Amino acid sequence: MKLASYFRSTAAYRVRIALNLKQIDHTLLPIHLIRDGGEHKQTDYQAHNPEGLVPALFTEDRVLSQSLAILEYLDETHPTPALLPNNALDRAYVRGLALSICCDIHPLNNLRVLQYLSGELQVSDAKKQAWYQHWIATGFTALETRLANHAATGEFCFGDSPSLADLCLVPQVYNANRFNCPLDDYPTIRRINERCLQEPSFSQAAPENQPDAE
Amino acid sequence: MKLASYFRSTAAYRVRIALNLKQIDHTLLPIHLIRDGGEHKQTDYQAHNPEGLVPALFTEDRVLSQSLAILEYLDETHPTPALLPNNALDRAYVRGLALSICCDIHPLNNLRVLQYLSGELQVSDAKKQAWYQHWIATGFTALETRLANHAATGEFCFGDSPSLADLCLVPQVYNANRFNCPLDDYPTIRRINERCLQEPSFSQAAPENQPDAE
Repeated sequence: MKLASYFRSTAAYRVRIALNLKQIDHTLLPIHLIRDGGEHKQTDYQAHNPEGLVPALFTEDRVLSQSLAILEYLDETHPTPALLPNNALDRAYVRGLALSICCDIHPLNNLRVLQYLSGELQVSDAKKQAWYQHWIATGFTALETRLANHAATGEFCFGDSPSLADLCLVPQVYNANRFNCPLDDYPTIRRINERCLQEPSFSQAAPENQPDAE
Repeated sequence: MKLASYFRSTAAYRVRIALNLKQIDHTLLPIHLIRDGGEHKQTDYQAHNPEGLVPALFTEDRVLSQSLAILEYLDETHPTPALLPNNALDRAYVRGLALSICCDIHPLNNLRVLQYLSGELQVSDAKKQAWYQHWIATGFTALETRLANHAATGEFCFGDSPSLADLCLVPQVYNANRFNCPLDDYPTIRRINERCLQEPSFSQAAPENQPDAE
């Protein structure tokens, strides 16, 4: 398998962790999101992936897009270690945690949105920073409440092994730190993030450890 | 089961369609997102659902949030008719279509984001409209390319029966129409949307047919 990735992409980071955790043989295809106006906007990449986003997973037969769809695919085809719990209610809970990051936080703060704010809307850097921090704070406050109160919260978001939720959490915390968002109010999130980063699968997937890191 | 819903909520609309399709006995709990500063922001609702968003599904044991997590849960616990195809690659494709709407379009255009643009960022109505249309156009252009070129596209997004992708597509098209987005360039999307709305499961879930419709 080949993963189209950009070292700083939050969504690609999620999939890099899964490939490591499941020890799936793969190579990385770096797609630079800024250089030359963005390699993801080029025709040959978009021919494979019309959304022109990273990540994309090149399997033998198909090109898959959307990080959560890729993660579910990897979990179905390489079930060990499992990214989702055994019963349907718990799976819904873990998927809900992951989606609260992937739908409620990340889409508002990714590169193309920040570029639109600066460009088309002429938003100042200070207000762009406030926007970023607002959506992090809104999302992390809800997530902290859930994690701090749920009986199944363990070393990781669900129990004592990594799940789909952790794979989404760690890249989002990385991004929050990069944008200097204060995380004092989220002790459970910080604790789980630190625990995850003790795992080589997570730390090796970090942006600074990518071949295309700058 | 009880579904916390707001008639105009795109995400609640997705779940309403699924409950109808699978003929799951349920009642609606209307949560008004505007009246009284937003009923979703009130303490008793947030005690069940810290994100304070709709939909939320109240099962006998738990309250589930995040529409896609709810849809996967309903599909696992009420497998007929299935919302996902039989094999892993096809499931990844259908989930990818759904996520391209739920992650790349809808989060940028929902009520709280439009309120932030008008309020904190003092964006004019015209520029807010342009923002809305930009993300619809970006997302629908990619989706149209996928659907128009994929061999499995049939009467619906995948084959000749509704899937997870259609449940996300129809509410998004409804919303695009509400904001007067031109859809001329998306003939496949329009065709599938019209086909879906011939099904009572879809049409009965439409905003104007809800008990809390205004």
